[in-house]
Amino acid sequence: LTISERLGDQLGFLLDVDRLKLIERETSLVGGARRETVAEHSWHVALAALVLGEYATAGLDLGRVVAMLLLHDLGDIESGTAEPGEPRDAERQEREGEAARRVFKQLPGDQGVLLMRLWREYEEGATPEAAFARGVARLQPMLATVANEGDVWSRHGITADRVAEEVQGLETAAPQLWQAALAVLEQAAESGIIEMPPQPVEAEGGDGVRARRGRRKGRTR
Amino acid sequence: LTISERLGDQLGFLLDVDRLKLIERETSLVGGARRETVAEHSWHVALAALVLGEYATAGLDLGRVVAMLLLHDLGDIESGTAEPGEPRDAERQEREGEAARRVFKQLPGDQGVLLMRLWREYEEGATPEAAFARGVARLQPMLATVANEGDVWSRHGITADRVAEEVQGLETAAPQLWQAALAVLEQAAESGIIEMPPQPVEAEGGDGVRARRGRRKGRTR
Repeated sequence: LTISERLGDQLGFLLDVDRLKLIERETSLVGGARRETVAEHSWHVALAALVLGEYATAGLDLGRVVAMLLLHDLGDIESGTAEPGEPRDAERQEREGEAARRVFKQLPGDQGVLLMRLWREYEEGATPEAAFARGVARLQPMLATVANEGDVWSRHGITADRVAEEVQGLETAAPQLWQAALAVLEQAAESGIIEMPPQPVEAEGGDGVRARRGRRKGRTR
Repeated sequence: LTISERLGDQLGFLLDVDRLKLIERETSLVGGARRETVAEHSWHVALAALVLGEYATAGLDLGRVVAMLLLHDLGDIESGTAEPGEPRDAERQEREGEAARRVFKQLPGDQGVLLMRLWREYEEGATPEAAFARGVARLQPMLATVANEGDVWSRHGITADRVAEEVQGLETAAPQLWQAALAVLEQAAESGIIEMPPQPVEAEGGDGVRARRGRRKGRTR
């Protein structure tokens, strides 16, 4: 019994990406027991794309969205996740891209190129699939952080406009989800779970998060 | 800004299934740092299905396979994973089915029925998609356990024939993967990582794991 070189490389890749279970994200599990791992996040957002696929612009290829979400964070396998508030500048993007390339390079050439292309598509966020995927990938931690009363946001001084900006890809890729994300943020601000920015923000289309000041639960800034 | 009842139910479901990150499986991470969570396993096997999809019998719907794998363990959310060697008897299957039903019931009716049907399809294993999904779901922990020198297997006295039986769905759904799984097991047995069963086993097709006795690395049973 033997294993072809091609299949051997594929199994080697699958064994290697096990490392993604060791990388922690900033977001806590609902209830706050610990932080979630990147692997757990990747599962959660792929499932979220399935469940919320009906809100995506018609004609969008949901299979490609799910594939992208399963591998979108493989670049974190060596560099770790970005700190909240850490700008994903050119230097960091370069580093993640290098890590992703190294990981995908373990696959047979044709397949490595294909998956690296999907990874890149997600990074660039230009296609409807990538925009939807990016929005869903940020919606999940947003919901968890609301459930955890804003733990990450207050720890890092992150305001509602910043979070809204992160899910902005949904505005065209899935307008109803975009509206829902804004509604969740608005309610979070009203409950004092997240701060509104110091300056009023005019969201495009005039229906963004309004710069209403949330009641603070005795929290100081 | 409001959220429709339908979308609210879907977001509630997505928040609730966060609990899958708290359920541990028996399989250790590669390197043995800790056990993997069910959410991590679900991510890993969905990605494995993408990477290994080319070995599936022609005409198989890979999108359905990935969807199944993303939700196949949602029945564990309340009952926990089965102990290795624990028979998945009618009583346990009933319990998992009940848990899955409760979880999916949080979704809008039509969608809950659809996803429960996928969950059930995986459980029954009768379609090519389900057979492939089940095989891939067992291949991943098999590879991790080989990398960890058989930790789970020796802890629970699990022999090679039992593991081969678990991935048997691959025999028709992806013959090359089935051959590869047998090759991995055979080599593991030769290295003393897993025990062969006391009695020779004739696998169907005459090409199963041969009942050759592996060298034991000074391990007693």
